[in-house]
Amino acid sequence: MTVDLTNVFQQIDGDYENLKELLREAVAIQSVSGDPSKRDETIRMVHWMKEKLEAIGTVCELADLGTQELEGKTVKLPPVLLGTLGTDKNKKTLLVYGHLEPFELVEKDGKLFGRGSSDDKGPVLCWLHAIRAAQKNNIELPVNVKFCFEGMEESGSVGLPELLEREKDRFLAGVDFVCISDSYWLGTKKPCLTYGLRGICSFFVEVTGIKQDLHSGVFGGVIHEPLQDLMWVMAQLTTVDNRIKIPGLYDQVAPLSAAEEKTYDDIEFDVAEFRDSVGAAHLPTEDKKTLLLRRWREPSLAFHGIEGAFYGPGEKTVIPSKVIGKFSIRIVPDMEPEEVNRRTVEYLNKVWADRGSPNIFKPRPGHSAKPWVVDVNDSNFLAGARAMKRVHGVEPDRIREGCSIPITLTFQELTGKSVLLLPLGAADDMAHSQNEKNNKWNYVEGVKTLLAYILELGSA
Amino acid sequence: MTVDLTNVFQQIDGDYENLKELLREAVAIQSVSGDPSKRDETIRMVHWMKEKLEAIGTVCELADLGTQELEGKTVKLPPVLLGTLGTDKNKKTLLVYGHLEPFELVEKDGKLFGRGSSDDKGPVLCWLHAIRAAQKNNIELPVNVKFCFEGMEESGSVGLPELLEREKDRFLAGVDFVCISDSYWLGTKKPCLTYGLRGICSFFVEVTGIKQDLHSGVFGGVIHEPLQDLMWVMAQLTTVDNRIKIPGLYDQVAPLSAAEEKTYDDIEFDVAEFRDSVGAAHLPTEDKKTLLLRRWREPSLAFHGIEGAFYGPGEKTVIPSKVIGKFSIRIVPDMEPEEVNRRTVEYLNKVWADRGSPNIFKPRPGHSAKPWVVDVNDSNFLAGARAMKRVHGVEPDRIREGCSIPITLTFQELTGKSVLLLPLGAADDMAHSQNEKNNKWNYVEGVKTLLAYILELGSA
Repeated sequence: MTVDLTNVFQQIDGDYENLKELLREAVAIQSVSGDPSKRDETIRMVHWMKEKLEAIGTVCELADLGTQELEGKTVKLPPVLLGTLGTDKNKKTLLVYGHLEPFELVEKDGKLFGRGSSDDKGPVLCWLHAIRAAQKNNIELPVNVKFCFEGMEESGSVGLPELLEREKDRFLAGVDFVCISDSYWLGTKKPCLTYGLRGICSFFVEVTGIKQDLHSGVFGGVIHEPLQDLMWVMAQLTTVDNRIKIPGLYDQVAPLSAAEEKTYDDIEFDVAEFRDSVGAAHLPTEDKKTLLLRRWREPSLAFHGIEGAFYGPGEKTVIPSKVIGKFSIRIVPDMEPEEVNRRTVEYLNKVWADRGSPNIFKPRPGHSAKPWVVDVNDSNFLAGARAMKRVHGVEPDRIREGCSIPITLTFQELTGKSVLLLPLGAADDMAHSQNEKNNKWNYVEGVKTLLAYILELGSA
Repeated sequence: MTVDLTNVFQQIDGDYENLKELLREAVAIQSVSGDPSKRDETIRMVHWMKEKLEAIGTVCELADLGTQELEGKTVKLPPVLLGTLGTDKNKKTLLVYGHLEPFELVEKDGKLFGRGSSDDKGPVLCWLHAIRAAQKNNIELPVNVKFCFEGMEESGSVGLPELLEREKDRFLAGVDFVCISDSYWLGTKKPCLTYGLRGICSFFVEVTGIKQDLHSGVFGGVIHEPLQDLMWVMAQLTTVDNRIKIPGLYDQVAPLSAAEEKTYDDIEFDVAEFRDSVGAAHLPTEDKKTLLLRRWREPSLAFHGIEGAFYGPGEKTVIPSKVIGKFSIRIVPDMEPEEVNRRTVEYLNKVWADRGSPNIFKPRPGHSAKPWVVDVNDSNFLAGARAMKRVHGVEPDRIREGCSIPITLTFQELTGKSVLLLPLGAADDMAHSQNEKNNKWNYVEGVKTLLAYILELGSA
């Protein structure tokens, strides 16, 4: 029996000022996980969320993760918030994951403008509101709900995989569904569900060969500069159109079947709108299907920067003695991180041999994460699809994402159950960037979607 | 009549502990010109030096330079210390220039280890000691001495050229000789005098094309990355052996006459020692003459870094939206900065056209300084040579320097008199780097050399 939610949804619409106030409070807490001076705020955010969950009847515990070394200091890790709402043996159990902090501290005029509003404090609060709305209207939740909220996702979820491993047979026991609302719609109007994520392999390319920084006036022209070598080597990694030059890398990509290719035809995606949203004059490809394939099911290589060189404004006359180039490769099925690491380091070494510099070259892989794909006919996925249709009146697009959410794989492996990625925010929320925002409409409809999803799980 | 300095020199040797103590005091003052939080220390250093000069009878004034904008703050500029020791109309006047601060703040274990000991607090204190030694021994100085000591050389001598311009007909009037002890010996044993300096042209290469930093997961592979373009463009500037690929640049170098080339034969310079001092495995050339020519009378191009990209330790997943590459070209006679700027920007634009990226490319010249060469038969230069021979017993090598000391040109132009660059420190002092030091021996012999030089000026 389907509960009629018409009045509840109207009530949620009318409750907007309260929803907004709560998000304002949450975003105002500067829980920047990567900044040791903000660690107390990150911990405060977890406690703040704990109080909110307790107020809706959740039994909460704070799992201590010990300490970490950050910028030369030993700092306390924020605890992970584990919550249990309902322990009815006759109901299935949904596990909800979310995180409570911004990806990076991007200052603009001294303010952390909106960071967290969409990624991921907004969606986390949607869960809270959805359950509050059910309680207010005496709607019984058809599933038990467990929460796992952390404060360190954007700094690599330090300690969380180990905690989950330890909790496999206790907190994670009996979980039937997992839902993560930590990704985005493909566009700004039509909802979607995410069935695939790319993995990642990070790389460090170190070049040295002189024992300390040198003055370019005194030494310029008579030494082999590590930074000149590094930029030359990195310039051999991609073409101008951002295709990867490492031999054999594309060969590892799973073949695209005609059936899968056909699913791309119906996906609503406006290339011109996408191009304008990033502010580019042209894109390497402006064909919808090719572009989506490159974002979701092809590897890509991005340059991030250089450690050890001058980075400030103005001029400098130093020849840096040791520089480390940073780049990463997004990977897709059936690419294996080990194989990608091997081929990449092999190519870098070959390019280095071509360079013929007497400097010291040390390429090495950094962290990696596997790609992820899920069965779109799974009951959890279908419950999400029905919930979206109920709120938005349209069938959501089935999409993939170019980025990695490594915890997805962890939950899948430890619970043995399917994970649903249920995005609530619009494509232009610009999470992780200077102007992150969350639309009022997405936020409010997000509450409704999560409520509908929980109820749909009753028949999943 | 030459004053016998044997006893005076012995006295100077015996006075080492006092010399050391004074240098310890001076180096301990953290007068880092580029750091606004250390500005008070930079000002304190100028006052400290003023007291020392007054104690030897110098009439001092502090020339106010107003304020500057630094890291978004308006900070007071340290005053320039102008001192006059003697106003005897029957004597010629020597103007001594020096600076009182480190080139850059290089922290090692939290300490500014030795910075300033050789560049340039050490040599400045040698002047002080030399005059003290003369006074103690009742040796009359054959010249009036004026001092111009500043605290901002390593941050571009902000305001000093303008001050000197204003002082042209007052403080600078009547100056007959200028001496700057702010460079280094070619090796570690044999003294030398510097008759040439390279100039510099700095460049900024900006690439943008997306309106804000993007997440490499979401956007990797479907945009033209500014940082990939930038590294590719910069990789076209030099060969692996650090030769410049900009067409026509070497053509502007003054031809090397057979006579000039011959002067290189006698110069004492150990290539292996030089190579080991920088810690390199090999150098682009290990032929003594070719190496020295490349350092002193050929242009060179050095990479300094990138502004706008990730520069911290660890990993990041950002695609930077706007990056600025920094490099500089050292120039020699007869290269003109305007011509170098024109050819370089032209080449960059040509390379950019080859790249074929739709991103936005803005190469632009930064500051520039002309090269400088002086007549080695000039009376000031010869007085310096006699002083060195008197102290060290050998004829000093006549050398050039790869770096720029722009104030040299300013003094030459405003006084119309020759400037002597009289180096006191050893080649391995590693000024501007992490381990700057000044040898005890060089420091003590430096005092003697400057005393002998002042006395030699009596017959110049």
